[in-house]
Amino acid sequence: MEAVELRRRIASGEVSPVALVESCIARIEAANASVNAVTVTAFERALTEAREAEAAVQRGDALGPLHGLPIGIKDLSETEGLRTTYGSPLFATHVPAADERVVAVLRQAGAIVLAKTNTPEFGAGANTRNEVFGATRNPFDPRLTCGGSSGGSAAALACGMFPLATGSDLAGSLRTPSAFCGVVGFRPTPGLVPTETRGHAWSPLSVDGPMARTVADAALLLSAMVGDDPRDPLSLAVDGARFRQLDAVNLGGLTVAFTEDLGFAPVDDRVRAAFRAARKALEPLFGGRTDFAVDLGGVDQAFAVLRAVTFVGAHREKVESTPDKVGPNVAANVAAGLGLGLRDVAEAANVQTRVLRDADAFLAKVDAVICPAAAHPPFPFEDWYPATINGAQMASYFHWLALAYGPTLAGLPSVALPFGRDPTGLPFGLQIIGRRRHDHAILSVAHAIESWAAQNGFGRPVP
Amino acid sequence: MEAVELRRRIASGEVSPVALVESCIARIEAANASVNAVTVTAFERALTEAREAEAAVQRGDALGPLHGLPIGIKDLSETEGLRTTYGSPLFATHVPAADERVVAVLRQAGAIVLAKTNTPEFGAGANTRNEVFGATRNPFDPRLTCGGSSGGSAAALACGMFPLATGSDLAGSLRTPSAFCGVVGFRPTPGLVPTETRGHAWSPLSVDGPMARTVADAALLLSAMVGDDPRDPLSLAVDGARFRQLDAVNLGGLTVAFTEDLGFAPVDDRVRAAFRAARKALEPLFGGRTDFAVDLGGVDQAFAVLRAVTFVGAHREKVESTPDKVGPNVAANVAAGLGLGLRDVAEAANVQTRVLRDADAFLAKVDAVICPAAAHPPFPFEDWYPATINGAQMASYFHWLALAYGPTLAGLPSVALPFGRDPTGLPFGLQIIGRRRHDHAILSVAHAIESWAAQNGFGRPVP
Repeated sequence: MEAVELRRRIASGEVSPVALVESCIARIEAANASVNAVTVTAFERALTEAREAEAAVQRGDALGPLHGLPIGIKDLSETEGLRTTYGSPLFATHVPAADERVVAVLRQAGAIVLAKTNTPEFGAGANTRNEVFGATRNPFDPRLTCGGSSGGSAAALACGMFPLATGSDLAGSLRTPSAFCGVVGFRPTPGLVPTETRGHAWSPLSVDGPMARTVADAALLLSAMVGDDPRDPLSLAVDGARFRQLDAVNLGGLTVAFTEDLGFAPVDDRVRAAFRAARKALEPLFGGRTDFAVDLGGVDQAFAVLRAVTFVGAHREKVESTPDKVGPNVAANVAAGLGLGLRDVAEAANVQTRVLRDADAFLAKVDAVICPAAAHPPFPFEDWYPATINGAQMASYFHWLALAYGPTLAGLPSVALPFGRDPTGLPFGLQIIGRRRHDHAILSVAHAIESWAAQNGFGRPVP
Repeated sequence: MEAVELRRRIASGEVSPVALVESCIARIEAANASVNAVTVTAFERALTEAREAEAAVQRGDALGPLHGLPIGIKDLSETEGLRTTYGSPLFATHVPAADERVVAVLRQAGAIVLAKTNTPEFGAGANTRNEVFGATRNPFDPRLTCGGSSGGSAAALACGMFPLATGSDLAGSLRTPSAFCGVVGFRPTPGLVPTETRGHAWSPLSVDGPMARTVADAALLLSAMVGDDPRDPLSLAVDGARFRQLDAVNLGGLTVAFTEDLGFAPVDDRVRAAFRAARKALEPLFGGRTDFAVDLGGVDQAFAVLRAVTFVGAHREKVESTPDKVGPNVAANVAAGLGLGLRDVAEAANVQTRVLRDADAFLAKVDAVICPAAAHPPFPFEDWYPATINGAQMASYFHWLALAYGPTLAGLPSVALPFGRDPTGLPFGLQIIGRRRHDHAILSVAHAIESWAAQNGFGRPVP
């Protein structure tokens, strides 16, 4: 059941928060052994909180927007009293003394933290596997990866373990696993969801965001994550309440740009074929269509450099002092970064600035850009990444994520939306990209597409 | 006369915009030969606009907040039809086709652009001299520098050439010349005044800001500069109208931290002595006093690195392709940057983030930090910078500006406020530093100190 509907029934007394938590626990206990989506659980505390939530309903208390809704928290976020490992052996026994902001505000909104969800080490990579908890499997085929880095959240949502989960996104970490598991992930405009945990406060690359099974549920979760925090200089300081109601959008009144590859990304031919089928179905719905015309030339190099700055800043000391406790992706990023110069950073920032302004100018005139959410179908969970796309070698473990890091570099909000299945029966996802700071508008567009898709044979697949 | 008062009298018909522009032109013609503050002028257009402004008053039109007020624009900002050189021989004949945002919004607010003001080449340095227009002199002693890089604006304001002027600030470019010339300069929180011209859109180091002869005038000018622009991702998107009225502040209710050197800056003993005298006079006014307790260790190196990133990004190609047309400061920045690695940038961003959060936590509990606005008295205009402070060699041409770049790195808004004269008769300036995004509050505090100072022998000096 949708979180929006669950929340309505909790308030009306039709759904008991205790029964809901018990049902989610049962689902985790039944399904987690096969997917390994959840790392550690907080069942006792969750049940206690559910009883309090139920009492609050019975007392007629004012209820938060997420009152009584169970949630999974990605294992990159610190949770009070609940082990937080970052997928790293260095933090395998780390139990935080306090919630970080995003967790605290979700609890304040009434959410019940039920479990942590698996992630690759420090979120590096689009395959959710690490030395602490192993690999998370794809709910549609356990031989395949769920994607990453918010892979535990995506797989758990697909399996119905809880209706809401948090994720984060640098190069598609909210979007790729959503595409692979048939759920919704939303990368917001940087600063919409403030965080005190970014190692480089002024870098807009990494953001926290919501994951759910529908766009409306993701927007509901987002409404509680949005806010202001003086520790985050990129805070947009807007009121999240607006996200609890999306606009009704007439698709015929929109102008959109369809693109298979954003003009620069390597995209597997199977994905191109599935996207063409989706495009064929969708394109007639829109009144205006235009070509995608933002030049993303130079973005591969610029993204690699700016990503390396954050990895060197965050992880160089670990790589140097405990090399045997750091995995290949993090080590590769740091090593690549140490070989680069300040000049590389300066030129990358020039490209970032050009792309930001060009993309904003384009999206001032176009309501949405629609492309595939992932450039490759789910691959075997033993592989770190697809080494080739259409036979071409990838330059790094993240090069295949260009469809995701293009919008990241341009600072654009982006929805990964399930859109039926590909010819092999695996979930297929669209990426719906909007203008900076127009997060509500692009979620509303995605919501309208989702509604149409559900009624026309492209609905969310269920494993 | 104050801009606030002029604007009131323009609206009431007591002051004619035409007469005001004519009076400013006369002042420029009388004084500019000795200070060289103004580079190029737009007298004809200004007179035409003044006549239109006068007609608007007579018609009873709605008037913008700066209606009819003459303004000087720093020569780093593009002005339609008015030569804009950046102090560089490469742009010596550059006449822009359009106003950049900050100029356009000032015109929309009713300001009349009267002249451009001198700046060092590309704003690099705290001595306003360049190959195109030569050096701007200090209005209090023509053998000395006016400071920089908004030195033309500061000297022109001190000479009464116009009541308002724009400036910009990376390492004190709004604050140092204000201190040297006895006027007010305000470095706002990054993003309060959006700009589309930053080469690195996500870098918070360089900001535009207002200069005037009083705090209320600077706040009036700021009110028209504030706004939102999608081309600037740091835009705070606040309404500027609030800055047209500052709060009445009871100094006795404030807690402040006095510091001679922000704990890390080289400060000349003469400045220390003048500051101690100011502190002795001011300190009893405040109800609460606390020690400055933000650790700015590492800021010298972090600022040098992050500054180099922006200079390499903006100027490397010029230095390489036309080395004979680039001055020593810009060339030194680029050369220093090319010798640094990505690791230096990553570590600098770590320091920047730590300092940002520490400073915010400190200023959440303290209403203002008060220190000298400049670390050295005005020096001979032939010198690029003070090579030593108290006998110690400076590491670079900007190291002596640590009092200014400390707050810059921490992202803090900061007012340079004239506070009487030093023992040699030159202007002495205080720096009043506030919390990020609390620009209105810190301007209100500065305004209250200014009022007290004017009544107690520490008023603004007049050349």
